[in-house]
Amino acid sequence: MREVPVTSLQRLPVYLNYLKSLDDYDSFISSGAIARALGMGEVLVRKDLAYTPAQGRTRVGYRVGELVAAIEDFLGCNNRRSAVIFGAGELGSALLSYGGFSNYGIDIVAAFDNDPSKINKCVSGKPVFDNREAYAHIVKRKVTLAVICVPAAAAQSVADDIVACGIKAILNFAPVLLKVPRDVIVRNIDVAANLAILSSQLD
Amino acid sequence: MREVPVTSLQRLPVYLNYLKSLDDYDSFISSGAIARALGMGEVLVRKDLAYTPAQGRTRVGYRVGELVAAIEDFLGCNNRRSAVIFGAGELGSALLSYGGFSNYGIDIVAAFDNDPSKINKCVSGKPVFDNREAYAHIVKRKVTLAVICVPAAAAQSVADDIVACGIKAILNFAPVLLKVPRDVIVRNIDVAANLAILSSQLD
Repeated sequence: MREVPVTSLQRLPVYLNYLKSLDDYDSFISSGAIARALGMGEVLVRKDLAYTPAQGRTRVGYRVGELVAAIEDFLGCNNRRSAVIFGAGELGSALLSYGGFSNYGIDIVAAFDNDPSKINKCVSGKPVFDNREAYAHIVKRKVTLAVICVPAAAAQSVADDIVACGIKAILNFAPVLLKVPRDVIVRNIDVAANLAILSSQLD
Repeated sequence: MREVPVTSLQRLPVYLNYLKSLDDYDSFISSGAIARALGMGEVLVRKDLAYTPAQGRTRVGYRVGELVAAIEDFLGCNNRRSAVIFGAGELGSALLSYGGFSNYGIDIVAAFDNDPSKINKCVSGKPVFDNREAYAHIVKRKVTLAVICVPAAAAQSVADDIVACGIKAILNFAPVLLKVPRDVIVRNIDVAANLAILSSQLD
């Protein structure tokens, strides 16, 4: 995939949600109209949309349906992919219960934990298995995407294990910097750090 | 606060965690040594640390204790601030139970929900109140920081209400673009979008 700024990648789902809320997929919409509806800058919107394969027409803009399809295509929504969650505590359970992943073509197929009280149960219809069964499940289903929701102290060890299973991309909620091989992508969501950043901006 | 790239702000807690793991606060450490320990680029580390008030010395680097204090100061860790959570579902409960906020000087003082089965209970020792009591609590405790963990459909209405209570910064987990007055800061954590970005990078 072409190198795209993360901030643009994060705004594309916002445009997608807005466009999907429009009734008429056959009508045209300009980047200016999208910008106004979302309270964003027009230049920014135009630049973001230029990363997708969508073709706007001068003075008319984009056909809504085509733009939706182009953004979905760009975000991989039409390329269904399975993902697994490590750690079935409250955060892991919240993610198992969250329906929004399917909008992006992502199926959360299972979670893994080492706590016997959580294993072999279902959360929102999704199975929670023993960590020790992860290898078999990941290899069998050819899963390459994982979410780490285990405590910080366990995160590196889990990362080592799942990389050995063939996981190539990790969304990491644990507040540690994971060491992974070069061909594995990690995105970190450190909730406390995000709140700290907000707090510091209040000063 | 000086305008700092978000990516730098997100790395500072990583340096902080590493530095705090060192035993000898009186020893010196160079940006190169920090970079090597964390598997990051030295230039990047040096640039990030330059945003803080820490003063490195040529060929010696930073005194560990001074650098810890400087990063903590910069991130607002020494400036204790209260925050509240809206939505005491699984995600909200996970955040109520998470101990890591105190490392950044942030106290989660309460959560609010509109579900009678959740109200007037405690989660990890933190009280969950009725949404309708939010105004009184926020004003009384002069809270300016809030986390939104309610479903997407309810998020804008909650944002409107809490801005009216005096909240000035919002960490928003709902996958919607909130409309807020200009003097209110919003940071979005869209978990599904982050996973979609990772997924698209696998293509």
